[in-house]
Amino acid sequence: LRTHRIAVIPGDGIGREVVPEGLRVLEAAGRRFGFTLACTEYDWSCDRYLKTGAMMPEDGLDRLAEADAIFLGAVGWPGVPDHVSLWGLLIPIRRGFDQYANIRPCRLMPGARTPLAGRAPGDIDFIVVRENTEGEYSSSGGRMFAGTEREFVTQQSVFTRIGCDRIIDYAFRLAMTRPRRKVTSATKSNGITFTMPYWDERFAEAAKRHPGVATDQFHIDILCAHFVQHPDWFDVVVASNLFGDILSDLGPAVAGSIGIAPSANINPERKHPSMFEPVHGSAPDIAGKGIANPIGQIWSGALMLEHLGETAAAAAIVSAIETVLEHGPRTRDLGGQAGSAEVGRAIAELV
Amino acid sequence: LRTHRIAVIPGDGIGREVVPEGLRVLEAAGRRFGFTLACTEYDWSCDRYLKTGAMMPEDGLDRLAEADAIFLGAVGWPGVPDHVSLWGLLIPIRRGFDQYANIRPCRLMPGARTPLAGRAPGDIDFIVVRENTEGEYSSSGGRMFAGTEREFVTQQSVFTRIGCDRIIDYAFRLAMTRPRRKVTSATKSNGITFTMPYWDERFAEAAKRHPGVATDQFHIDILCAHFVQHPDWFDVVVASNLFGDILSDLGPAVAGSIGIAPSANINPERKHPSMFEPVHGSAPDIAGKGIANPIGQIWSGALMLEHLGETAAAAAIVSAIETVLEHGPRTRDLGGQAGSAEVGRAIAELV
Ligand SMILES: CC(C)[C@H](C(=O)O)[C@@H](O)C(=O)O
Ligand SMILES: CC(C)[C@H](C(=O)O)[C@@H](O)C(=O)O
Repeated sequence: LRTHRIAVIPGDGIGREVVPEGLRVLEAAGRRFGFTLACTEYDWSCDRYLKTGAMMPEDGLDRLAEADAIFLGAVGWPGVPDHVSLWGLLIPIRRGFDQYANIRPCRLMPGARTPLAGRAPGDIDFIVVRENTEGEYSSSGGRMFAGTEREFVTQQSVFTRIGCDRIIDYAFRLAMTRPRRKVTSATKSNGITFTMPYWDERFAEAAKRHPGVATDQFHIDILCAHFVQHPDWFDVVVASNLFGDILSDLGPAVAGSIGIAPSANINPERKHPSMFEPVHGSAPDIAGKGIANPIGQIWSGALMLEHLGETAAAAAIVSAIETVLEHGPRTRDLGGQAGSAEVGRAIAELV
Repeated sequence: LRTHRIAVIPGDGIGREVVPEGLRVLEAAGRRFGFTLACTEYDWSCDRYLKTGAMMPEDGLDRLAEADAIFLGAVGWPGVPDHVSLWGLLIPIRRGFDQYANIRPCRLMPGARTPLAGRAPGDIDFIVVRENTEGEYSSSGGRMFAGTEREFVTQQSVFTRIGCDRIIDYAFRLAMTRPRRKVTSATKSNGITFTMPYWDERFAEAAKRHPGVATDQFHIDILCAHFVQHPDWFDVVVASNLFGDILSDLGPAVAGSIGIAPSANINPERKHPSMFEPVHGSAPDIAGKGIANPIGQIWSGALMLEHLGETAAAAAIVSAIETVLEHGPRTRDLGGQAGSAEVGRAIAELV
């Protein structure tokens, strides 16, 4: 029996309610497709921070390094500032393990409710490939003349050749596995005149290396507009850290899947474990009630299995999700009455 | 008779076709409401660049400084790089005249086609207030280790206290003139950890100065999603240069008004002329055919009259636009057959 070692971090809020459902479905898939998961659970969270003063222990990354993959719920809680909760757990994992490819599928699923008029499943099916380690999310910046009229704050965006090339190449390789073989680049070189022209330059070079892939590019402002007006135009969309962040929320929003969208933080060289987490957050308003929609977590589990080479199992989970989205049971956000566990069990049974 | 001195820059492409329609409507409004326009036209454009090597003459800004307002069409043409066309004309005017408030109404107009399901006129009516001189559009940055593996490019975002306070205060003052009295701030302080927390800090200070105005704030990723899912939530949205750029294309896209949206680049202290231009560009694909929709230009003219104190005339133009949008004539982008001039004449007659 193949065994995959999984580090499980439920985190905060509904993370603790949806992660068990994710594991339930993963285990069902293991029974059917012949693998087991060796899970180690970590209580790293805002709760832990409030008790101990740290989101995770000092050797946190070393412990996770043993795992084949990390399965994360959600991080963040009212009263704990983001620079503590996110920069004390989520961001250090992404960067420490060089998970430079953040992959976020945007798909109009059967039974999902898109806010757009006249769009049906099949019309929206693209993937945002986001750079996940550099760019606009930088640790270089500061404040001068504090407390005076002259006060100002700076922050430096940093685009390296290595950082640009590897994420853009990843997007091209991904596009070659898909029928449409198309990559769209998000830019803003008409306004952000140092970093973005450089991004365009590296994108043009990569396009030469992949002559079998069609390309286009749009400035981020009109690209966001196109996501709403022509979501059918897109196949693989590659973007910097900030632009990818924006597009990978907007994409699921237009597809009506924002509450159920998955994401993968991948270290393609497999030197370090990759991390899988839903796009949604810890949702303090509904936490503790057992009503959160577990599909984002379960779908993230499917991405994890794909990464671990369990392709058939991953496909079985996605198709079970589609069946449940179409025929129920549904949680309240989708107009149903079911709890998290009921939906999790239904998907597990189908798998 | 009141006279307003207007500097007219048709610019490139369809700019030359829609600006005359804008002027036609402005002159009709003048006849009815008792003012005249003293227009000086400038041929500053990519065409001029290709002939003379400069988008505008060296003393361009000095000449414009005489005007009460600037009425601009569109700038940009294939073959002329953006850093020439935009940074040689549009951006120097915005910055040189300290037009720090970029105002972009997003409204679902009668007869417009929104891509959203189930939204009717009245459901979407908000204004994006964009910082227009600093932030992410900075002239500080550079490249190091060019041509090697270690190559990297940086660009510094700069947020000054003066720059933040004056645009945020502008948004609050604007909100006080509107029935809902609400300001939403666009942030990303969980990821962009120097500049954005500072923006939040200044926003919180401004909120204290305006206790009669309701406030909220969202990270830019989820804010974009909310624009699609809940456009009815918003009244005045204040944002940095880049975030404002994105939101002011996305807003018109969800409202179905991207081809007709206006914008104002305002110097609120009136030390310098303000500039009024449609959000759309020079549209090389349809330029020269006389079929471009002139409504964005005409609506921008209404914003200009409002700024010049001709409030009744501005309102008359907007209501004429609404009538024509509902009953035609319509240009092709809105499903009609009319040319630019026919639509311009129809609106002028109604005024
Ligand atoms: C053309 C470009 C530099 C400009 C901007 O980003 O400011 C445009 O997108 C706009 O919004 O007016
Ligand atoms: C929480 C935040 C720092 C994070 C990001 O911007 O990367 C989130 O929005 C995401 O997309 O995973």
